[in-house]
Amino acid sequence: MKNTFGNQFSVTIFGESHGEAIGVVIDGLAAGIHLDMDFINAMMDKRKAKGRISTQRKESDALHIVSGYFEGYTTGTPLTILIENTNMRSGDYTKTKNRLRPSHADYTADVKYSGYQDYRGGGHFSGRITAPLVAAGAIAMQVLQQKGILIGSHIAQCHTIKDQPFAQEEELLEQQLRQMNTSDLAVLDETAAQAMRTQIEEAAMQGDSVGGILESAILHLPAGIGEPFFDSMESRLSHLLFSVPAVKGVEFGLGFAFCDRYGSEVNDAIIYDGKVKTRTNHNGGINGGISNGMPVLIKTVIKPTPSIYKEQDTIDKETHEAVKLTIQGRHDPAIIHRARIVVDAVLAIGILDMLMERSATMEMQK
Amino acid sequence: MKNTFGNQFSVTIFGESHGEAIGVVIDGLAAGIHLDMDFINAMMDKRKAKGRISTQRKESDALHIVSGYFEGYTTGTPLTILIENTNMRSGDYTKTKNRLRPSHADYTADVKYSGYQDYRGGGHFSGRITAPLVAAGAIAMQVLQQKGILIGSHIAQCHTIKDQPFAQEEELLEQQLRQMNTSDLAVLDETAAQAMRTQIEEAAMQGDSVGGILESAILHLPAGIGEPFFDSMESRLSHLLFSVPAVKGVEFGLGFAFCDRYGSEVNDAIIYDGKVKTRTNHNGGINGGISNGMPVLIKTVIKPTPSIYKEQDTIDKETHEAVKLTIQGRHDPAIIHRARIVVDAVLAIGILDMLMERSATMEMQK
Amino acid sequence: MKNTFGNQFSVTIFGESHGEAIGVVIDGLAAGIHLDMDFINAMMDKRKAKGRISTQRKESDALHIVSGYFEGYTTGTPLTILIENTNMRSGDYTKTKNRLRPSHADYTADVKYSGYQDYRGGGHFSGRITAPLVAAGAIAMQVLQQKGILIGSHIAQCHTIKDQPFAQEEELLEQQLRQMNTSDLAVLDETAAQAMRTQIEEAAMQGDSVGGILESAILHLPAGIGEPFFDSMESRLSHLLFSVPAVKGVEFGLGFAFCDRYGSEVNDAIIYDGKVKTRTNHNGGINGGISNGMPVLIKTVIKPTPSIYKEQDTIDKETHEAVKLTIQGRHDPAIIHRARIVVDAVLAIGILDMLMERSATMEMQK
Amino acid sequence: MKNTFGNQFSVTIFGESHGEAIGVVIDGLAAGIHLDMDFINAMMDKRKAKGRISTQRKESDALHIVSGYFEGYTTGTPLTILIENTNMRSGDYTKTKNRLRPSHADYTADVKYSGYQDYRGGGHFSGRITAPLVAAGAIAMQVLQQKGILIGSHIAQCHTIKDQPFAQEEELLEQQLRQMNTSDLAVLDETAAQAMRTQIEEAAMQGDSVGGILESAILHLPAGIGEPFFDSMESRLSHLLFSVPAVKGVEFGLGFAFCDRYGSEVNDAIIYDGKVKTRTNHNGGINGGISNGMPVLIKTVIKPTPSIYKEQDTIDKETHEAVKLTIQGRHDPAIIHRARIVVDAVLAIGILDMLMERSATMEMQK
Repeated sequence: MKNTFGNQFSVTIFGESHGEAIGVVIDGLAAGIHLDMDFINAMMDKRKAKGRISTQRKESDALHIVSGYFEGYTTGTPLTILIENTNMRSGDYTKTKNRLRPSHADYTADVKYSGYQDYRGGGHFSGRITAPLVAAGAIAMQVLQQKGILIGSHIAQCHTIKDQPFAQEEELLEQQLRQMNTSDLAVLDETAAQAMRTQIEEAAMQGDSVGGILESAILHLPAGIGEPFFDSMESRLSHLLFSVPAVKGVEFGLGFAFCDRYGSEVNDAIIYDGKVKTRTNHNGGINGGISNGMPVLIKTVIKPTPSIYKEQDTIDKETHEAVKLTIQGRHDPAIIHRARIVVDAVLAIGILDMLMERSATMEMQK
Repeated sequence: MKNTFGNQFSVTIFGESHGEAIGVVIDGLAAGIHLDMDFINAMMDKRKAKGRISTQRKESDALHIVSGYFEGYTTGTPLTILIENTNMRSGDYTKTKNRLRPSHADYTADVKYSGYQDYRGGGHFSGRITAPLVAAGAIAMQVLQQKGILIGSHIAQCHTIKDQPFAQEEELLEQQLRQMNTSDLAVLDETAAQAMRTQIEEAAMQGDSVGGILESAILHLPAGIGEPFFDSMESRLSHLLFSVPAVKGVEFGLGFAFCDRYGSEVNDAIIYDGKVKTRTNHNGGINGGISNGMPVLIKTVIKPTPSIYKEQDTIDKETHEAVKLTIQGRHDPAIIHRARIVVDAVLAIGILDMLMERSATMEMQK
Repeated sequence: MKNTFGNQFSVTIFGESHGEAIGVVIDGLAAGIHLDMDFINAMMDKRKAKGRISTQRKESDALHIVSGYFEGYTTGTPLTILIENTNMRSGDYTKTKNRLRPSHADYTADVKYSGYQDYRGGGHFSGRITAPLVAAGAIAMQVLQQKGILIGSHIAQCHTIKDQPFAQEEELLEQQLRQMNTSDLAVLDETAAQAMRTQIEEAAMQGDSVGGILESAILHLPAGIGEPFFDSMESRLSHLLFSVPAVKGVEFGLGFAFCDRYGSEVNDAIIYDGKVKTRTNHNGGINGGISNGMPVLIKTVIKPTPSIYKEQDTIDKETHEAVKLTIQGRHDPAIIHRARIVVDAVLAIGILDMLMERSATMEMQK
Repeated sequence: MKNTFGNQFSVTIFGESHGEAIGVVIDGLAAGIHLDMDFINAMMDKRKAKGRISTQRKESDALHIVSGYFEGYTTGTPLTILIENTNMRSGDYTKTKNRLRPSHADYTADVKYSGYQDYRGGGHFSGRITAPLVAAGAIAMQVLQQKGILIGSHIAQCHTIKDQPFAQEEELLEQQLRQMNTSDLAVLDETAAQAMRTQIEEAAMQGDSVGGILESAILHLPAGIGEPFFDSMESRLSHLLFSVPAVKGVEFGLGFAFCDRYGSEVNDAIIYDGKVKTRTNHNGGINGGISNGMPVLIKTVIKPTPSIYKEQDTIDKETHEAVKLTIQGRHDPAIIHRARIVVDAVLAIGILDMLMERSATMEMQK
């Protein structure tokens, strides 16, 4: 359903960038979960714009729980979180309201909503809508961590600068995940972060923007999660990932690099070492749409943010005249470091939902 | 839901490779549609194994409609299609039943289904299950064609051989789509087909397998299709694509190539030329999860089929002993040309479902 | 899904009686609908407690739209309405917190939510949660009225007092629907209203409560709405009706009175009078789960509100000791007149959703 | 979704009365369930027409499992059951094809499906479609019985003859459920059965038909099952019950008899007797939409079957001329005894699905 995802852990998001508030309703939470607000707020904080590599619009993003939470615990009924919109400068947008921003949803929203959409700041299409999604994801993440399941991402590539890849070895990978989460440009190799920062700042100075690739890992996920046929783990996770603004590609394991390899090179030999493992992990922890117990490995590409200060060619949506557009407002020269948190959030939502569905099936075997 | 996809055009698939029959229930079909069985069977036929580049298991794949069709027209009630399984050699599988085939779903199915799955020929995970899916997709395709919407794919790359990309220009692209569908190794440049064939046959001789990349295009789709937030066109189509066995990556437009480009390079300038268009189509016809009227462009990677004759390392699932496995049975050294049809089929299913959802919303404006 | 209903017109409700706010997210609204706030507020107002026949808790129920509405029109994105909780006296409840109120959800919520539910004022089970539902229903009603579809209910029976039934004749019935909606104890025969009022007040003086039966009619609904098999009109509407607190029975047309009649007596003879009609309407406008163009007629029983001042036998939920309970707080001696509006609201939601689904199917025939 | 029900235990039904086959796809079954075919066939057998009180169309209803079952156990993938249609006399129907049968779905189907429906024998609206539903319900029932949950119904009233009601006392009720299932006109008081049989036969001789009321009980269901707001137990079960052809009313506990009672009379006092119970069970085991551990009690009214031999007034659907109709073919003068099994089946499906959903939520608390 349009703005709702999840069969068991259901997340409904709402709001516009410059409306009164954005928010999320989470249905399916068990009762009695004490929310770790420090953890959740820390994740909210990481999504926020900071420093020179981000937009100058600073939001408090304070979470305001209006239902489903009582005396410090979830009640089991829908938990609703509101985030007020503040620090808006809608005036920035009205001037150029009729000039369709290239590679934005301006034109598509205009067709879909017959011109009635809230155009200010991208409205419902704004990256801002991911704030409540991160709140929901943080709650899912907290639940998963109590089960020992870890989820994390690093910036594998930002523009032309590559970070080192995740370690193949599970213990090393776990270490990497645990250490990385404190950084803003989360990378494994700090020298890469510095080079990325330089590129982003240079792009910003040119009034331009850059994109990148996130590598995500899900650790300690039990084997047997995911459903043929249409609810393969790849299907469910990609569905969520592609709902994140600016995501234009998703791959699992070797992904597109499978193309020119032989089956004999990339098949993952199965071994036994106290538990069933594979010698390599080209399939990214998933076979037949179902987790195999190895780390789930995902790559997601984030396109350069389409809001740039450079002059662009477009048309006036009413007159259809060709016009030049210089986008006003405050925007991010890069969003990959912020998208990283949104990616983690949706992965947590998807994984928790799938774990819950497995439990439903197991009811029958009790 | 597990084996059902689609809110309005709902497809439920069932069956195992070596069971009695596989099939599909299609719910949501309007009444009064005369099925063009020549068209549907032609599409079924293209999915079938042929020649030296495919498995030697030849199936008739005859469609047997058991409900929802009366006197040559759909009745509007669930249309059920059965395809009998014939030409099975289950004996091929029982010998190596306990040897987990690397990169197959043997182990994950075993965990998920506690050993009760039908292991013969991959059971429910077999590519064979895509036959009824193609039948459903062919019906969706027929409906879309009556609306003037065209869907087609070519093999953009098979192992190391690249085909030329789809034309940027819409009329040319339409021509390419219309011409290409007659070929088995569907490419735009016939010399590429020859080179691919050679590589596949060489791999086959080595007992090995190869993968590839499909490029798909959806033409004449109106702008305004797709839903924020979770039902973006990318989300829905990737959900379907990743349910196709062997798909490990999906990208839209430039996809992963967005990574090292500047926003100013890849933003698609908007122009007016009788209708609103973009000068380039780096976003693959989708902005903000919604179609913009330009061709929708998708790339899907198909991993090398994991069934190879070469000896592989694995374990016995009961004793956990390391064993050598030489997969018996008949398999495809490449499936990209067959997967192409399945990809077309699921794209048709997804697009039709989204068109129907748009009509539902428009009811409110009547 | 738990707190979400509707495939196309999706309503998600949240909140607890004594929490900060209750509300609703409506997804699937078309863009460009100007909300008639007078109409919506009038419907909200009718649901409110009034006079001596209702609780003394007076709420403002002011609707606060926080998303999906811009410059006086729906945007097509999720429309979120908040209603703040005010005039709460939570102290009333804490004293008797451990005494399970008979025929309330106290015990079942306690088991389901392991004691973590917000017990104050019934929490998520409070009739108060129907306020946002009425807001959503009023929006659906506005849309339906623009299509000429009318929905309305009267109190067919309150305790032992019966109102006259709806007219068989469609024009008369329409007149009845149009006139009745202004009254608080909405009946067709005003003398019945007076007698009902007297009974309710007498019950109130005894510290007791009464129930009743609502008769609802849906007029000018086109034939052909509803879906076999599981989405029959009766299935969808009863699903919604039984979600309204205190509803314990639903029937269509003759309902339970079908039991002792012969087929030949109750079959509705089909006639033609400019359009296809039935001479009688024992089936309440529905055959085979699909509307037949005649008025849809529904009866819904509302049990006496379980909150009474009379002393009752129950147990302490912790010690399991038998205790006497005298419920504190403010409650309604009858809720049938308030439930009437909620019933209208959910019928509007259900009918609009089904109309939208029909449009989805018709897309295929374009 | 139209012909699919269930979030976790999903049942998709298909087929037409005089088509080739009818059937069901069950998705969400755990692997490793050995189907008790004797139990399932016995339930199928009870649904079948028998003796003078039923239609003369005798069907074998042999279940043919074509997927999801391997070596005597469910595989965990979709289980598909086909039932061939045999002993059809389609000629019976073609003669009167244009004469709309009163109180049947002939007209509504004609509008909905624009005349393309399979009209023979009621097509998709035939009671025959309940055969695969009973097969699915029997499987659910088997799973529930292993959990100690019992479901059963008796004919509380057939035309004017009443059976005694279910015992209030749980042990007695269990005894009644266990004994009753062997009978064809399942009643608690055998003298009632004889009187019912006489009335049915008399109606049959008149070319007429009769209806009745089923009382159902669900025993040993744990407290805490069901979901506010829209997925109350009453909502889910009524949704299923109203999908059964000929059902026109559903009530829980006292149901419509709540109307003229005082709250103080009908509130169920809570007591403790080793476990939490209520002294009376006027609410039919459900409070706030959630099971309370007492027997769930439901009444369902079945209208007289509309197929009667008596001459009726109707119109020709093409000319709109008034015509007399004498329905040919073989039909049941009463279906209440057959509907009883369908009611049991859908209750089992609904209860199992809700139990599975509870397990999903509990995953979060592990």
